[in-house]
Amino acid sequence: MVSKQMIYDAYGRLSGNIRKTPILSSPFLDKIAGKRLLIKAECLQHTGSFKYRGAWSAISALCWKSPLRGVIAYSSGNHAQAVAAVAKLFGLSAVIVMPSDAPKLKIENTRYYGAEVILYDRESESREEIGSYIAKKRGLSLIRPYDDPFVIAGQGTLGIEMVEQLDQMGVKKSDVLVCCGGGGLSAGVTLALNDRAPDLIVRPCEPEFFDDTTRSLKSGKRESNKGGHNSICDAILTPTPGENTFPILKEFSGSGLVVSDDEVLEAMFESYLRLKLVIEPGGAVALASALYRTREIKGDTVVAVVTGGNVDFETLKLAFSSKQKRHNLR
Amino acid sequence: MVSKQMIYDAYGRLSGNIRKTPILSSPFLDKIAGKRLLIKAECLQHTGSFKYRGAWSAISALCWKSPLRGVIAYSSGNHAQAVAAVAKLFGLSAVIVMPSDAPKLKIENTRYYGAEVILYDRESESREEIGSYIAKKRGLSLIRPYDDPFVIAGQGTLGIEMVEQLDQMGVKKSDVLVCCGGGGLSAGVTLALNDRAPDLIVRPCEPEFFDDTTRSLKSGKRESNKGGHNSICDAILTPTPGENTFPILKEFSGSGLVVSDDEVLEAMFESYLRLKLVIEPGGAVALASALYRTREIKGDTVVAVVTGGNVDFETLKLAFSSKQKRHNLR
Repeated sequence: MVSKQMIYDAYGRLSGNIRKTPILSSPFLDKIAGKRLLIKAECLQHTGSFKYRGAWSAISALCWKSPLRGVIAYSSGNHAQAVAAVAKLFGLSAVIVMPSDAPKLKIENTRYYGAEVILYDRESESREEIGSYIAKKRGLSLIRPYDDPFVIAGQGTLGIEMVEQLDQMGVKKSDVLVCCGGGGLSAGVTLALNDRAPDLIVRPCEPEFFDDTTRSLKSGKRESNKGGHNSICDAILTPTPGENTFPILKEFSGSGLVVSDDEVLEAMFESYLRLKLVIEPGGAVALASALYRTREIKGDTVVAVVTGGNVDFETLKLAFSSKQKRHNLR
Repeated sequence: MVSKQMIYDAYGRLSGNIRKTPILSSPFLDKIAGKRLLIKAECLQHTGSFKYRGAWSAISALCWKSPLRGVIAYSSGNHAQAVAAVAKLFGLSAVIVMPSDAPKLKIENTRYYGAEVILYDRESESREEIGSYIAKKRGLSLIRPYDDPFVIAGQGTLGIEMVEQLDQMGVKKSDVLVCCGGGGLSAGVTLALNDRAPDLIVRPCEPEFFDDTTRSLKSGKRESNKGGHNSICDAILTPTPGENTFPILKEFSGSGLVVSDDEVLEAMFESYLRLKLVIEPGGAVALASALYRTREIKGDTVVAVVTGGNVDFETLKLAFSSKQKRHNLR
């Protein structure tokens, strides 16, 4: 189980090795949201997503305990790139198990960082089984994408960093919208905020049809997503909240928020236009919630964490064409 | 004439009112540049460009001397938005004279900040004459885009901020590539660096056919651009170096660097892909120089200032399609 102390320990290990990502805003976005909207631009983190924090936290913690043979991870892409990049810095070999339909950009980047990429079929194969098999056979340490205490603690460092930034801006009370897949970031940030600024409340944000966390928070137990649906938010399409992450969310977080893929595309467009940030669909869910679920958000200020920017050009074009129709700014 | 002390004074006035923009990097870009490449992401400044610094510096300095009736500026867009936004914060009316062919996005945004926009024809009319006439008639204070000591001092605050950031990264000696139009930013940063870190040398960067500063630095006197050419770098198409900016560059800066529009488009694409930053053509000239003029840059580290991100969708598409042909990442 992850503790608050583990987050502070991770913050110490990460210090000087991660970027302190800025908090941005725009009067144009405030107007849409109907309140002051602050955006934590974590897509500017190394490897283009918050996953770098968790990967650094886990690999540094394991390495400092005992020498590693190498690491293995399974991931649709952001965790993959983060583990590959951090492993390279630690001089470790890395094997990454990725779905064959993951964005090409993420697969290419993972290979660039020197990792061996093993592709699997999302429909017919289990990444957990492939991962366990290779880990055992080659003696590699598995870095899980979210349900690992060191990973959750690493993601929680974003919370510590953000509390300091918000404090400087005079913000002590607000909903904090976080894109949520398995819940590693949401849980880590929830724990950090609860310790440092208990009036900052995490609201997990999810895409339509993949709202397992939102429904789980309502029912009080871990619910699963029904199959048969798809979403452009590749980074956060997990079947159910994590065993280690959900109890934290259940105890300390606020209720979930759910947005459609179309709203996600519009948020990506607004981000380009107003923030000058490239964000990927899974990383735009919290911003979309801040912009288009304003009635479900209390208070005159809201914080949204933009979690990743690794988006293929074809998907980015969708965002432009979706919004372009309604916009005069061509 | 602008003094170093004026930059420190501006830094004090701007403190808490501007964003400290981050310095980013990517191993992918290091590889292209063949050296460590650090990118000062000033496109994340309020209103999407460094011009906000100069506008704040000038308007705050004038306001604190005596009450103003209002301000007027002429600009292709970034200075326009900055002056409009700062004037609004100071409760002043603003008139902005803009070329009728300026990017629609910049015209729309300037109006959004509450300014009155007056369009003129770039070929047949003089913005200076229109500006002076209206300024006199309505009793408005003119905020010049670059050749004003307070504006130069404001842009120089980027230099002070950057020296501190580079110092923390252990960088004390490097070429610092700055996108250059009239030279307000280049001159301000040159003065600041010369005072704080004299081994950081500004290299003004310009688009092909608009290399007046590069040629002026070679000949030692202010040269003009020949007409008959065009460039996508709308933000920095000035006819000749400024009267106040050039003497500073002549005394303290390094030689200029010149890139083609195609190289600018490629840099914009790399920025999307590797940095998650949206940058406009005029704001990408320094990054393009760092990536594609590496033989003209000494040392194992180079710094490039990305100066603005206000780009129309049509131009951004050009960047994608230009690079897409060569890239496998679709």
